[in-house]
Amino acid sequence: MTDSGADQATPKPSVRRGPWLVHDAREIYRNPWIRITEHAVTHPTGADGIYGVVHLQNLAVGCVPILDNGSVLLVGQHRFPLDVYSWELPEGGGAFDDPQGSAERELKEETGYVAASWWPLVEMDLSNAVTDERAVGFLAWDLTEGVAEPDETEELALRRVPFAEALDMAMGGEIRDSFSQTMLMKADILGRRGALPGRVAEILGYQKSET
Amino acid sequence: MTDSGADQATPKPSVRRGPWLVHDAREIYRNPWIRITEHAVTHPTGADGIYGVVHLQNLAVGCVPILDNGSVLLVGQHRFPLDVYSWELPEGGGAFDDPQGSAERELKEETGYVAASWWPLVEMDLSNAVTDERAVGFLAWDLTEGVAEPDETEELALRRVPFAEALDMAMGGEIRDSFSQTMLMKADILGRRGALPGRVAEILGYQKSET
Repeated sequence: MTDSGADQATPKPSVRRGPWLVHDAREIYRNPWIRITEHAVTHPTGADGIYGVVHLQNLAVGCVPILDNGSVLLVGQHRFPLDVYSWELPEGGGAFDDPQGSAERELKEETGYVAASWWPLVEMDLSNAVTDERAVGFLAWDLTEGVAEPDETEELALRRVPFAEALDMAMGGEIRDSFSQTMLMKADILGRRGALPGRVAEILGYQKSET
Repeated sequence: MTDSGADQATPKPSVRRGPWLVHDAREIYRNPWIRITEHAVTHPTGADGIYGVVHLQNLAVGCVPILDNGSVLLVGQHRFPLDVYSWELPEGGGAFDDPQGSAERELKEETGYVAASWWPLVEMDLSNAVTDERAVGFLAWDLTEGVAEPDETEELALRRVPFAEALDMAMGGEIRDSFSQTMLMKADILGRRGALPGRVAEILGYQKSET
């Protein structure tokens, strides 16, 4: 269509996105981890405006690595955006089509441990007003120790902490990372409900006292 | 210093940020909700690279609004970044120096309800590898119904759901928003531990069966 008639002010067709009307989208920035796009939109209520979206290039993956003695592995690192030191479960950026394989790789890289048993624990969206970031977390057990292989952007510390203590760190705010908080709290609730894999419930001591 | 000598290749002094060395920072983008900055850095391991940070202009605030009959208020809306419909607790962007006042305003705007009683429940960092987003969540009770006042970017639905059902929605992934998942799960764990405010424990039925 080279000559579409009277309305020259709307050169491109607008697209529906839920209750929004999207008139235009321009990429603002891109690096290997994020991509920023600004959309020209009409909001659900009819007001015109913009919507800036932070697209995450990777899936957030993580796990609760459970040692046979009931301790879990925590990783400590300085987090650049907040400029704070943070103790967390092993987490990282993974492939959307291979969450578990990505979590296995992150666990190995950050702690050196390899887990023979995996179980899907958490799926969630991390900051859905501004980003499209999705997270998938696992329980990991039957662990074998090896050598950590952090990538070139990481400087990591490792702690082995009894599960109940890690949960208390999440409940008390000593662990502030939301992904870690949710994984630890959900594991506890599932344990109390008798809904954990049998071996995990046994290691963590849920079977005797609950259900 | 107009003539600093031999090394003309490093015009600005570098700054330490934890284990990083920051050589430069340039603002890429800014809107009322986010600001993107790309930093030229030396990583903790000595490799040179970049670090793109998404700065959130507002504090994420939210609450678990608990009705006298034990139901909680959930808000439904289409989330633009993921292009999905999402049921969540009332949440929004607030002021860093007034988390509770901001959560009160969001509750009123999104649901019309006003809560006479508030209690700090959750503090967490939402996506600390890429953003500096912080979230503060509350329990809210002694609710009075009023008229919702959504802002011009919002089109919202409202549901009243028994707390146990909302928790199951979070545990089962029907509620995917991480902030909502954490608030619901933490309230449950505190309830089982006998650590909720007395009136909330009574409304939600924790006191009789646990502790």
